[in-house]
Amino acid sequence: MNSPDRISKYAVDFSRSCHVQLRPVPVGAVKLGGDFWQPRMARNVAVTLPSQYALLESTGRLNNFRRLTGECTDPYAGIFFNDSDIYKWIEAAAWAQVHGPIPELEKHVNEAITLIEKAQGPDGYINTWFSLEREHLRWTDLRDLHEMYCGGHLLQAAVAHHRVTGDDRLLNVAIRFADLLCTLFGPTAEGKRVAVDGHEEIEMALIELARETGDSRYLAQARFFIEARGQRTLTGGRWGVEYFQDHVPIREMTTLCGHAVRALYMACGVTDLALETGDASLLAVLEQQWNNLVTRRMYISGGLGSRHDGEALGKDFELPNERAYTETCAAIGSMMWNHRLLAATGHARYADLIEWTLYNGMLPGWGLDGKHYFYVNPLADDGDHHRQPWYDVACCPPNVARTLAELPGYVYSTREDEIWVNLYMQSEAQIPLGDRVVALSQRSNYPWDGRIDLSVGTSGSFAINVRIPGWCTEGASVRVNGDAVANPVVPGEYLTIERLWKPGDTIQLDFPMTIRVWQSHPHLHDNAGRVALSRGPVLFCLEGVDHPGSDVQDLVIEGATPLQAVFEPDLMGGLVVIKGTATRRAPDDGWRNALYRPVGATQSAAGPKQSLLAIPYFAWQNRGASGMSVWLGHDGQCGCAG
Amino acid sequence: MNSPDRISKYAVDFSRSCHVQLRPVPVGAVKLGGDFWQPRMARNVAVTLPSQYALLESTGRLNNFRRLTGECTDPYAGIFFNDSDIYKWIEAAAWAQVHGPIPELEKHVNEAITLIEKAQGPDGYINTWFSLEREHLRWTDLRDLHEMYCGGHLLQAAVAHHRVTGDDRLLNVAIRFADLLCTLFGPTAEGKRVAVDGHEEIEMALIELARETGDSRYLAQARFFIEARGQRTLTGGRWGVEYFQDHVPIREMTTLCGHAVRALYMACGVTDLALETGDASLLAVLEQQWNNLVTRRMYISGGLGSRHDGEALGKDFELPNERAYTETCAAIGSMMWNHRLLAATGHARYADLIEWTLYNGMLPGWGLDGKHYFYVNPLADDGDHHRQPWYDVACCPPNVARTLAELPGYVYSTREDEIWVNLYMQSEAQIPLGDRVVALSQRSNYPWDGRIDLSVGTSGSFAINVRIPGWCTEGASVRVNGDAVANPVVPGEYLTIERLWKPGDTIQLDFPMTIRVWQSHPHLHDNAGRVALSRGPVLFCLEGVDHPGSDVQDLVIEGATPLQAVFEPDLMGGLVVIKGTATRRAPDDGWRNALYRPVGATQSAAGPKQSLLAIPYFAWQNRGASGMSVWLGHDGQCGCAG
Repeated sequence: MNSPDRISKYAVDFSRSCHVQLRPVPVGAVKLGGDFWQPRMARNVAVTLPSQYALLESTGRLNNFRRLTGECTDPYAGIFFNDSDIYKWIEAAAWAQVHGPIPELEKHVNEAITLIEKAQGPDGYINTWFSLEREHLRWTDLRDLHEMYCGGHLLQAAVAHHRVTGDDRLLNVAIRFADLLCTLFGPTAEGKRVAVDGHEEIEMALIELARETGDSRYLAQARFFIEARGQRTLTGGRWGVEYFQDHVPIREMTTLCGHAVRALYMACGVTDLALETGDASLLAVLEQQWNNLVTRRMYISGGLGSRHDGEALGKDFELPNERAYTETCAAIGSMMWNHRLLAATGHARYADLIEWTLYNGMLPGWGLDGKHYFYVNPLADDGDHHRQPWYDVACCPPNVARTLAELPGYVYSTREDEIWVNLYMQSEAQIPLGDRVVALSQRSNYPWDGRIDLSVGTSGSFAINVRIPGWCTEGASVRVNGDAVANPVVPGEYLTIERLWKPGDTIQLDFPMTIRVWQSHPHLHDNAGRVALSRGPVLFCLEGVDHPGSDVQDLVIEGATPLQAVFEPDLMGGLVVIKGTATRRAPDDGWRNALYRPVGATQSAAGPKQSLLAIPYFAWQNRGASGMSVWLGHDGQCGCAG
Repeated sequence: MNSPDRISKYAVDFSRSCHVQLRPVPVGAVKLGGDFWQPRMARNVAVTLPSQYALLESTGRLNNFRRLTGECTDPYAGIFFNDSDIYKWIEAAAWAQVHGPIPELEKHVNEAITLIEKAQGPDGYINTWFSLEREHLRWTDLRDLHEMYCGGHLLQAAVAHHRVTGDDRLLNVAIRFADLLCTLFGPTAEGKRVAVDGHEEIEMALIELARETGDSRYLAQARFFIEARGQRTLTGGRWGVEYFQDHVPIREMTTLCGHAVRALYMACGVTDLALETGDASLLAVLEQQWNNLVTRRMYISGGLGSRHDGEALGKDFELPNERAYTETCAAIGSMMWNHRLLAATGHARYADLIEWTLYNGMLPGWGLDGKHYFYVNPLADDGDHHRQPWYDVACCPPNVARTLAELPGYVYSTREDEIWVNLYMQSEAQIPLGDRVVALSQRSNYPWDGRIDLSVGTSGSFAINVRIPGWCTEGASVRVNGDAVANPVVPGEYLTIERLWKPGDTIQLDFPMTIRVWQSHPHLHDNAGRVALSRGPVLFCLEGVDHPGSDVQDLVIEGATPLQAVFEPDLMGGLVVIKGTATRRAPDDGWRNALYRPVGATQSAAGPKQSLLAIPYFAWQNRGASGMSVWLGHDGQCGCAG
């Protein structure tokens, strides 16, 4: 299926890391199919990537490079970190071609790389905003002006492009820039400048460059930037040093706070460092951060970031719904971080969260047409929040594109003679395992159906570890060629099946997709008295367009009528919806001119019953403006339903 | 009691306004007394004002003026609108001396005025940030740099100082600055620049200057600034044109939005304009703004501003408690606006809101020691929010001081042969009414007791209109010399008593101070299932310091035990508290590592009963750090209690 040189390429290459527990299987080794993922992967290539390149062009982002090559005399266009959008796009376009060149993408990638090459200075410096009339500002404001952030995306793009194509043009640009950083920044004892960038990104990028080139200087440089953080040097900003994760040294940072994307990108870099160095003190603090985040600061969508103010993570239990920030990039940052934690620890909980965040944190940010996006992903809306084709701060759209392009690299992991199945998606895989390549195929209608048939196409003695999803708390079953496995099936853990496989052997997984009804911790007041619905790995919401004449906030789920999951083939390309019955409990007239009133006044009478239709949260705001809510009123009677 | 020249001075002087319904009685005509207000007024003079002047000095704010007089060579200190703090302090210190000079204050006021006089340029320009090395920046960034905002506070200070002392030094500075504005800004047809300031304040200040000087040019200039708004010229800011109330022309602005203090200061200016011009279209839109604000966007404290992000008013029902912004200045802005609306319409609802906001919106911002403040006033806290002696952006402290100093001017209003009693506070008043002066005395232990005895000290035929507080929905009674009045007693309205008064006549008001238990509109999800307590005009809260070992969020009011109000003479200078019984319903162990879980899991068992003590919200965070909450759990049984 693949050319052998391409299938061995990793989105994140832990293959040289000594301390990795589970190595992801290369992106090119897995081809996603099926009714859910095949059209989405195709849409990324056919719609998302070309439309984004057109926007990189029309918004002047490419012209910013042409100013340096002399091909353009326009003023610099847009915000000072616009270069990063091009780098992220190149990274995405590179991985999108892992199965072979796609002429239009290849042409644009090469055009962009040629511009970048020409724009680089002889000393290795590259950043179009800090060039020409602003050259004198280079490295003068590391706190706010994102020079290393842009550089980090350059490095990631270069590594991706080199891995996929073998072409080293962009890699050499990245190496020259990284070398410049190594020259300028470091310990005072080496005559260098002690400094860190206000927006983390360079840390994980340098480590990937070290993995790609084998040059440990870049790892040392990443380590320097990570260890230099927490000295409170990034002062004077509007939101304090916490915004930049510069308030305490990494080993004392037991909770993530401040700007959500920065915090998550930092956590990625620190996890990469732990993977390379085996520093257990780093892994210990990362696990503390993760536990706090997941049990106190995460939306039920997996989204992260409670505050518009400072684009920040909130305090414990601070999770407003309509004013959620939950930047799409933060969900992606969470996927990236959990990808690394899975590699570092082998715990299925990280794969669980990757899956949940993929469907409910990241996918909502990508419109079903493939060319409209959300930057902010609220969990409730009054009809004001609309998808946009682009943003002045356009970090999210190309981040979605690269995450989709790299998604096949999240599906499997390996270690010695074992395979881990992290994600369930219809797919064909050629998994490098020691000296052989194991063919593994998934047949499934996931995420709509919990039945998955895993077919082994290669004989041999090895183990396959299948993830029993944490959401599947009851009834999960695992059979091999029809026989139940002896090992206990524990939700939220991997189940190991070790045997001498022969071609045609099949693992039948059955994860019953019960509709689950969720409540929130009592201290999370925003959700008091309300519930959320999920089924399998998919979170649901009510949208006003399905309930004409009603405010979705007033709909109360009737527990007496069972909720039912129904596949609707004609709805937004085919979706499972949840159907039920609701009453409409609208505020009575006494509330028309009041926001507060004494208790004991007449209560609102329940209105007539009406049908209720919940759609996957990732599909909201694709049918025009209307209200939306993930958290729903209920009558106290509803529980989990089949 | 007062020297005749001082008692006739108004905090806001509507006496020349043709369209005023109720004219406030001058500040100097009313002297507050009693156990509640006398010590607070004294504390403002003895502690707040002197400590603030010391801070104006130590933080370099006065030195910023001395840089211009040559007495100081330090660099400019602090933020670019620091001049305004001095002006607000002068305004406060002027009104604090309405009953006669206070030597230390008088000395400092005169020192400051001398500096200001010397610092003014020959063209009338004055702003210390835009002087010396930054002269070339004058009027280059009206959107963000507050030149007219500072100027407006200069005008208000000058008018206050002139009214109280008769001295015209500062008034002449203000006139020269106002004349400069009139020269520079205006219609294109007059060869002037069409522009507005990003932070409203100059509008109401110019109108007060017009009232003080009789010069209608300043009214015309204010009108120009108000009418020029809404042209979307203040673009490119982080939060859009709404932040500056520049999104629609005033007559289309049916809701207040954007930066809360700006929105309220604008509303003050627009109301002043309506008062001067009788423009009914302005009053109509102001009433729409007010209705929306009060019924959809106001905290139960009267506090305004839901968002840290942009210090902004939220959307309808967006009222987070712990992340409330509710700047003290916004509560003050609301009092100022309602003062003007009361004057413009005579409706008691505005006096009701002045009272409620005074006790529950403004007073919480002023520490009981008189020298610590809140800028932000959340309605719940985990113990992290602390009072500060000052702020880099120090708008709130001197705003508190001036509001306290002007408070006597809110108590009464008059029109022709009628007196209105707006606020209940123990006090002695000499009320100018036509050609005579009516002596009126209030005896009361308000706000702890709803019994007020109003004694008339002057004979004559006139009407006294007493406000029946909107919070007193049951049992209010009004007697004159022991006899019930014939007129119906309608909560939220004024009740008119017209008779031939003779000295010694007494009106006995009795407003039973029932403990009220409030619920929120069903769309205000943050308060779902919780209640708030008030008694009379005072809102209550639970503080952790009174409930050791319990998180106040976990306390659930037991309805079976009646709530009781008790005066505690030794608690923070004497306060009424509400006592009751609570159970502690702490999250069970299943929540230790979960933020969400399926419904139907074990519910938390109610803990043992414990006593509950609620204190006035305005008194919170005066006894060290602990949790606080205005909204409380309840068992569904509690209603209003005696």
